[in-house]
Amino acid sequence: VAVAEILSIGTELLLGQILDTNAQFIGSELAKLGIDSFFRTTVGDNVERIKEAFATALKRADLVIATGGLGPTADDLTHESVAELLGTEMEFDEEVFDRIQKIFARFKYKMPESNRKQAFRPRGARILANPVGTAPGIIWEIDKQTCARIGVEQPRTVLTFPGVPREMQAMWRETAVPFLAKSYSDGVTWSRELKHYGIGESALAEKFAHLLKLSNPTVAPYAGRWECRLRVTAKAPSVEAATALAQPVIDEILRGSGNLCYGFDDDTLESVVGALLTKSGKTLAVAESCTGGLVSERLTDIPGSSNYIKLNVVSYANEAKQQLLGVEEEVLNGHGAVSAECAEQMAKGIKELAKADLGLSITGIAGPTGGTPEKPVGLVYIGLAIPGSYLGKELGLPSRLSRSDIRLRSANEALNMVRLHLIEEGQR
Amino acid sequence: VAVAEILSIGTELLLGQILDTNAQFIGSELAKLGIDSFFRTTVGDNVERIKEAFATALKRADLVIATGGLGPTADDLTHESVAELLGTEMEFDEEVFDRIQKIFARFKYKMPESNRKQAFRPRGARILANPVGTAPGIIWEIDKQTCARIGVEQPRTVLTFPGVPREMQAMWRETAVPFLAKSYSDGVTWSRELKHYGIGESALAEKFAHLLKLSNPTVAPYAGRWECRLRVTAKAPSVEAATALAQPVIDEILRGSGNLCYGFDDDTLESVVGALLTKSGKTLAVAESCTGGLVSERLTDIPGSSNYIKLNVVSYANEAKQQLLGVEEEVLNGHGAVSAECAEQMAKGIKELAKADLGLSITGIAGPTGGTPEKPVGLVYIGLAIPGSYLGKELGLPSRLSRSDIRLRSANEALNMVRLHLIEEGQR
Repeated sequence: VAVAEILSIGTELLLGQILDTNAQFIGSELAKLGIDSFFRTTVGDNVERIKEAFATALKRADLVIATGGLGPTADDLTHESVAELLGTEMEFDEEVFDRIQKIFARFKYKMPESNRKQAFRPRGARILANPVGTAPGIIWEIDKQTCARIGVEQPRTVLTFPGVPREMQAMWRETAVPFLAKSYSDGVTWSRELKHYGIGESALAEKFAHLLKLSNPTVAPYAGRWECRLRVTAKAPSVEAATALAQPVIDEILRGSGNLCYGFDDDTLESVVGALLTKSGKTLAVAESCTGGLVSERLTDIPGSSNYIKLNVVSYANEAKQQLLGVEEEVLNGHGAVSAECAEQMAKGIKELAKADLGLSITGIAGPTGGTPEKPVGLVYIGLAIPGSYLGKELGLPSRLSRSDIRLRSANEALNMVRLHLIEEGQR
Repeated sequence: VAVAEILSIGTELLLGQILDTNAQFIGSELAKLGIDSFFRTTVGDNVERIKEAFATALKRADLVIATGGLGPTADDLTHESVAELLGTEMEFDEEVFDRIQKIFARFKYKMPESNRKQAFRPRGARILANPVGTAPGIIWEIDKQTCARIGVEQPRTVLTFPGVPREMQAMWRETAVPFLAKSYSDGVTWSRELKHYGIGESALAEKFAHLLKLSNPTVAPYAGRWECRLRVTAKAPSVEAATALAQPVIDEILRGSGNLCYGFDDDTLESVVGALLTKSGKTLAVAESCTGGLVSERLTDIPGSSNYIKLNVVSYANEAKQQLLGVEEEVLNGHGAVSAECAEQMAKGIKELAKADLGLSITGIAGPTGGTPEKPVGLVYIGLAIPGSYLGKELGLPSRLSRSDIRLRSANEALNMVRLHLIEEGQR
């Protein structure tokens, strides 16, 4: 199996001014091609340090993939640095220069003198054309003799891409993928995430401890924001062979997890609830207080949600709870707006107001202020009015959570409650 | 000036399954503290490679800051690896174990046996407490003798953090910053972002081209999601000296940008609208259709928003628009739910229903389906009912945008409309 190393070049990456989405993109693309990757290095715009990073990477990887530092300005140093490291000259490429001039002519701009710099490449490197910008990259298949200059015994390959994500991705797809698939790819890596809600990472890992020891497919747990995932990854010569390896393990997890597993990959609690509502032909209406519209926003972010969501209400003030949802004054005075009784009346009220099959309510104290010893920040009531019945739940979330986290967790719990109800109903 | 190197540990990072937001966060935090950073390394969950990454980093940096690999599972190897590299034992820490047990007890969970692993730390390292999770990090001030074992002549410091961003950030702020500021900071880098809405990055860069050439403070433009920012950064021995350098430049930008600049740093359109509502003593009510609760959710994410938000409605179905907001049947039949007329009646209707000072409405086609040649995806109407008058706006957003992006841009435009109105009112 070939080994690649990604080199991200740019001081703005080190300073945290931008997020390195290129490295993530290339990482996932390499995995799909079945090319291993053990290290990734980020380095600033400095010749000596770029040389050091290339030297280290060329020692431990067959293939070094660099992004950034190909622009026209003085701090774009990638090609110069790798040429200098390997004792090779920079060569002026007439064809590239011609292309750059044409791009400027097409946009009726005068080419700044600095862009001339982009027409140079290390001697022996081929140009990796940039279909969407002026900065070309290179494919440099470096021979053994040249590699020996830095103490590397094997031939190596260097690919470079500009740092602008659209340009990098276009070049990757059009030029790099065919080259890598032909020269370096060794089968495929296929993976699936099994998303869980209502169980912690360590409990999940313990439950499937025997699977975590497998080598192909591998099973690894990840903690997310108030959920966790098991990722099953298989390597094989083809997608079919990889899924055949993975499927028995996926089936075993699904049997063991039951309703704790809510979906796969891009599924979200709201997309799963949406699919269950669509399947059952039921409608849902939501009355939110402390979550302020978060549940509504998430449910309606799913295309087609207008089929099952007709009306939601954010009833922040007591008056709104009374006027629209029919919460009784005695409940508000006797138990307060944050109470099991109020959640029940809100859920029943929104169900009736929207003429929906299900009415969901959330009322609680999201903080940071508004808590009391009896009703601390993090106390949340969730209600679900269903035909002929009602389900209620009290959450005591940690007071130290942020307002956003309390809202997020409350919304997740509410969506999960609807999910479990719809699954149960569907099984009757 | 002290030099730090960030080590991001986790196979999921190399595979591109997650984006390394931690490295970006720490990179920007180090810059603020005036600590240099020349390299950043990412490595998978493998003891030998983690050791190699630590060895390389400890050779070239005073301070190595690692994230990830502190969880309870078998592939969490950070502390074991660095201890092994430096020839040091792992020690069981009773106090940490006690704390982990208490966390589980508080949530009434049985502690899985695997969590016991998190109570071990390299001998000589101090615990960096984790205020929001079970995985503690360490501060390890490694003496000269120990460093000599790997051929490093100087004492070094290793800090470790869990990979979960909220835990990492909480620990960073509470424990790491005071430690680093005391032991390593050499002057300060102070920066302020000036957030703009309603102008593009290149237009902003052109407007302030002369400022982009400055060297201290520097001014750099960044494009965000439908907004852009100018970052002013000054370096000086103290915060006072740095702000004194930056302030005249900030003032010049503010004069030039006027209302295009909506705030600083952590300000959001919703927090600015919230502050303006609080200042003016006015209340706002929102009726949303295509944004499905996004505006409501954003407005109520601001602490204290219950003072100016009493009731919002998500009226997805026509029936809800008629019944609650009083949109006339003729408008729905004649102009449709996505029309300037409907937006106006929704805005006036929600203002009246909620008895609010301002009524905001949004109706449009977020896609991906539901568009027609006359009313394509991306057509959005925003309405703002104000005392004695009404403001309306039509947006023709590009149809190729995703559903989420159309919702986001519509919400931004709506919030900005409220912002500009409140500023104008305040100036009367």
